Amino acid sequence: MEKTANIPYPRNVETMRAVAFDDAIRFVADAPVPDVPEGWARVRVMSAGICATDLEITKGYMGFRGIVGHEFVGRVDECADDTWAGARVVGEINASCGRCEWCAGGLGRHCPHRATLGIDRLDGCMADYCVLPIVNLHRIPGELSDDRAVLTELLTAACEILEQLDIRGRERIVVLGDGPLGILCAWVLATALSDVTLVGHHPDKLDRAAWRHLKRSTKGTGVEGGADIVVDATGSEEGVHDAIALCRPRGRIVLKTTVASRVNLDLSPIVVNELTVVGSRCGQFPDGLRIMQTVPDMPLERLITARYPIEEAAAAFARARNADMLKVIVTMQE
Amino acid sequence: MEKTANIPYPRNVETMRAVAFDDAIRFVADAPVPDVPEGWARVRVMSAGICATDLEITKGYMGFRGIVGHEFVGRVDECADDTWAGARVVGEINASCGRCEWCAGGLGRHCPHRATLGIDRLDGCMADYCVLPIVNLHRIPGELSDDRAVLTELLTAACEILEQLDIRGRERIVVLGDGPLGILCAWVLATALSDVTLVGHHPDKLDRAAWRHLKRSTKGTGVEGGADIVVDATGSEEGVHDAIALCRPRGRIVLKTTVASRVNLDLSPIVVNELTVVGSRCGQFPDGLRIMQTVPDMPLERLITARYPIEEAAAAFARARNADMLKVIVTMQE
Repeated sequence: MEKTANIPYPRNVETMRAVAFDDAIRFVADAPVPDVPEGWARVRVMSAGICATDLEITKGYMGFRGIVGHEFVGRVDECADDTWAGARVVGEINASCGRCEWCAGGLGRHCPHRATLGIDRLDGCMADYCVLPIVNLHRIPGELSDDRAVLTELLTAACEILEQLDIRGRERIVVLGDGPLGILCAWVLATALSDVTLVGHHPDKLDRAAWRHLKRSTKGTGVEGGADIVVDATGSEEGVHDAIALCRPRGRIVLKTTVASRVNLDLSPIVVNELTVVGSRCGQFPDGLRIMQTVPDMPLERLITARYPIEEAAAAFARARNADMLKVIVTMQE
Repeated sequence: MEKTANIPYPRNVETMRAVAFDDAIRFVADAPVPDVPEGWARVRVMSAGICATDLEITKGYMGFRGIVGHEFVGRVDECADDTWAGARVVGEINASCGRCEWCAGGLGRHCPHRATLGIDRLDGCMADYCVLPIVNLHRIPGELSDDRAVLTELLTAACEILEQLDIRGRERIVVLGDGPLGILCAWVLATALSDVTLVGHHPDKLDRAAWRHLKRSTKGTGVEGGADIVVDATGSEEGVHDAIALCRPRGRIVLKTTVASRVNLDLSPIVVNELTVVGSRCGQFPDGLRIMQTVPDMPLERLITARYPIEEAAAAFARARNADMLKVIVTMQE
């Protein structure tokens, strides 16, 4: 059923509700509705997720000030290209220049001139409206619920591991961190590998992570001689140390999370054991959307553990900091 | 001309001269001559190099105590296998178990049970004699001088980069650090790549590094948009930071040096720019010996900037710490 007609536009189209960070997370009732630059679209946001990166931003990561949020599902509200009108969409978060060699090579997410939604010089999606380049938008297939679609960005970041690593299928993989990104990494890897262990500190989160043949553990990895690949999705200094300790000689470590603070690290095991450390960030949305369609039993909805209306965003952020939470959703539209 | 006959054996065959580290580097006149375990050989050492790792050991790296040194050239003195008698040899530094899966796979240098010459639970080569497994020994081709042969271990460590990285030939490579390892890395890479820049702080060392088309610089890299590969051979925390800053998105960093201290590191550029960090240690001696033969014009002797007799090893170590030094050699035999 088409939902567009039910969206209640704000009474004053010139202002909108938003969640902004300056020195704290605040609900703003009268943020200006963003203009639509040429080649961009304005999206009416239905819901947005709070991500670990958002929590890092509130600690000073990237020095960002402005409307936060980069995980969303919405509908195109204004766009010069009529074919997008009203389309239900998700959006890639890097607004690239479209002209440099990175953009030409299909790696606009590494464009040196890029701005990043809710992270770097571009207001985010935790608001009634956000704007993004049209090329960043992806239509959501009809059968995907909003709750699944809002996880596209995070799921795509998990898919990036498969794109970066040359995986043979028989590697023993350990994923550290039982937050939403860690669980998604474990699930995505479990679609391609038979031996995947998710290690976390929270038995209830690990319960929610149960899926297919995925092994889960609150202590150790049970992988004798070290894992072939260790994914650190803990977002903590401790996780990086653990990853180095758990990896076999000549194994690979995937760093998935960004932290605002510096890490005090002993690099010599990386050299002595000839480890390879691979930084891994965003992926390409078609990969995330494809896996949602081809693996429909992946229990994405389980990751959503709380919902707050936008007016209660400060409470939502406070809740998202609790260790028992997985994904906290902020809703703009019912 | 055969030199064996000229080697003056110590007056007392039961004791020998050695350079040991406990809380400081000391010359020892009466260290016991090591016994020869089954499957091992005893080598009469002619000369040994002081390596950056040796200097780190004097700061506490690996907690090593005992006879130092792992770079040497010598002659086989005692060995159950007669075919080795008197052979002029160099030796791989990792004494592996020979039975585990690593050893079976030809990667004995990562054997979890290994001891390492002068670094970890095995007395080193800066002495009249050292012992190593026979399988670790490599005969030195007749045309290679002792001064070239003593650099085999270090040259092999440089060759390891070519073995680990899948190099296409057109990458822009920057090597940081104008010490012996940095220069050797730059020279080895220059045999395979056309665009190699060595960056260091010491104009006189960079002068000695001049070879073929290698570019040398005391400031910056001149590589616009970041280098495809950055090799850190500085042995300093600053070098690791520089490597991260100089590498292009999705580029690769090779960590070549081990430092005793922890490094305070901002990991987020590794994640955001999706860098790959590759730890790189020892290589396989045949690779180093082969490049010495196939590239005879590589001016290895230029790296030797001082020589001391073993009795003056403490002075040799003090000299090796000077920023103007490249390779300092300790001689046991004239």
